[in-house]
Amino acid sequence: MHASEFNVEKFVDIIEKENGTISEVYFVACGGSLVDLYSSCYFINRESSTMTAEWITSKEFVLTPPKKLGKHSVVIICSHGGNTKETVEAAELGVKEGAFVITYTHTPGSACDSEKFHAIVYDWEPETLQKDRPLGLNYSIINELIHRQEPEYKLYEGMKDGITKCDAIIRNATKKFQNKAWNFAEHYYNAPFLYIMASGSAYAQAYGFAICSLQEMQWMDCCYLDSAEYFHGPFEVTDKDHIYILLKSVGKTRMIDERAEVFLNKYAEKYEIIDAADCGMDAIDDSCVDYFNAPLFYEMSVLYRTAIQNKSGHPLDMRRYMGVVEY
Amino acid sequence: MHASEFNVEKFVDIIEKENGTISEVYFVACGGSLVDLYSSCYFINRESSTMTAEWITSKEFVLTPPKKLGKHSVVIICSHGGNTKETVEAAELGVKEGAFVITYTHTPGSACDSEKFHAIVYDWEPETLQKDRPLGLNYSIINELIHRQEPEYKLYEGMKDGITKCDAIIRNATKKFQNKAWNFAEHYYNAPFLYIMASGSAYAQAYGFAICSLQEMQWMDCCYLDSAEYFHGPFEVTDKDHIYILLKSVGKTRMIDERAEVFLNKYAEKYEIIDAADCGMDAIDDSCVDYFNAPLFYEMSVLYRTAIQNKSGHPLDMRRYMGVVEY
Repeated sequence: MHASEFNVEKFVDIIEKENGTISEVYFVACGGSLVDLYSSCYFINRESSTMTAEWITSKEFVLTPPKKLGKHSVVIICSHGGNTKETVEAAELGVKEGAFVITYTHTPGSACDSEKFHAIVYDWEPETLQKDRPLGLNYSIINELIHRQEPEYKLYEGMKDGITKCDAIIRNATKKFQNKAWNFAEHYYNAPFLYIMASGSAYAQAYGFAICSLQEMQWMDCCYLDSAEYFHGPFEVTDKDHIYILLKSVGKTRMIDERAEVFLNKYAEKYEIIDAADCGMDAIDDSCVDYFNAPLFYEMSVLYRTAIQNKSGHPLDMRRYMGVVEY
Repeated sequence: MHASEFNVEKFVDIIEKENGTISEVYFVACGGSLVDLYSSCYFINRESSTMTAEWITSKEFVLTPPKKLGKHSVVIICSHGGNTKETVEAAELGVKEGAFVITYTHTPGSACDSEKFHAIVYDWEPETLQKDRPLGLNYSIINELIHRQEPEYKLYEGMKDGITKCDAIIRNATKKFQNKAWNFAEHYYNAPFLYIMASGSAYAQAYGFAICSLQEMQWMDCCYLDSAEYFHGPFEVTDKDHIYILLKSVGKTRMIDERAEVFLNKYAEKYEIIDAADCGMDAIDDSCVDYFNAPLFYEMSVLYRTAIQNKSGHPLDMRRYMGVVEY
């Protein structure tokens, strides 16, 4: 089905009817699509008393599948192009083991958009709402599932509200940060190397910023870090020449990022703070605002990579290997 | 207790007596200690039908604890120095929630070596056997737990055998690779940047090689990657000047590393393959040999970082921040 036809109550009715109570959710994809699934995995492991979740790259899922994978599992698959070989294999493995398999893809008619799976085709335009993108669809499904399986669950209304509100917040924030992004690009578009940090459910946005926005789209060398891990090794490289981007979350892990910022302020000079607290996130309920750092930081990575592209002249869509050579 | 007094049957008797059937295992630590726990987490999620596992940095565990954490949980903590603040907090949280909390530490009398926890003090000498180190102790405990909880479990004898055999394999392998490590250091000790890749249960050895051996101990910039993710973004930076270290596993995820090697062979020039297949790993049973890549690659990272130190003249133990300044 197309995301515009998606109705979460009816969809979770089907999960319940076909598979009953769910105890594990596996988030399986590659690269940027995998990034998109991280905060949902984090959500389940923090907030659910009936389910656990795992976040795993497709080929590892296929070669070393979880022993628990079965009838009581949901496998959530994402492939933008819809034909990533190992991701399609992962979806097929899920079906074979009796799991409820959801496939997100941007590409109608692709291998992921098959009747073998519960396929959802999403748009990916600047104006596409979060509720119609994989991250928002995941939040809706998980929120509904936990609500039904766990009478004591308290985030149900807050998450629904957040999914609706986050679009305007993100749109305003990217406007507000436009000039800051241009200035960053002006200074650092040609940097030999930089580090990107984030914490909690937003961690994978540092990963995605690094591997997709910079390594893939700008051929720029960089490394991603969990801000909490920064103090247990990586901070030893810090000096006045090293460049850092810190994605500073709002919510329960904010103090982790704050600690990193204090350190950078003392020992580094070239660092960029992208602070979710400057983005109007206080409109979202405190109990679940953490989970909206991820879609915000994703759009910030788009803003920054576009600014870098416009300065570097390296087109974001230029590839030398992906889709160009055999591998 | 000291690791030399450890008896796995008696220890798991205590787990069963105090906490009954276990359904979740949380592996919680920071930096290098966290690295040490990864393959055990991967093991449980692949091989157990009664337990799931999560691998999480201490401060995130403390600030956003799992809803499932409770009486039916084991929390496995590691802190070499034994006083890492957020790790001690994590152990205390585990106790408060009724979990069975195991703390590994190298430091007798530290906060982790407390009667509040099931503390195990380990030696960390070159001659210390794997069975007496956190990784081997974890494998023994998990193996025994799964064996008791799951009648169909098949790896019990293979894992016991592997834990015993891996020391000689690793010792011989590091001798065999000494000259190769010296040559790598001779060429690349002064490299501005490099990428380190590994797959499956050995992935965190790429992470540890990067954040501990190079970023922390040599102040060298680098980035770690899951080999399976290399093709979904990061490979776009590859050219004849970029430097790669590939930790090539034996076992079920080997084909992931092989695919990366084929690509490097075609498009890169400066890459180092550390191949577990050249290390006598075939003495370990095929069904569980995967899990012995991790301790092998750890010792390889020690070998390589020592070779780099000896060429660079940058002492592995020199720090500018850790234990030197307040943060």
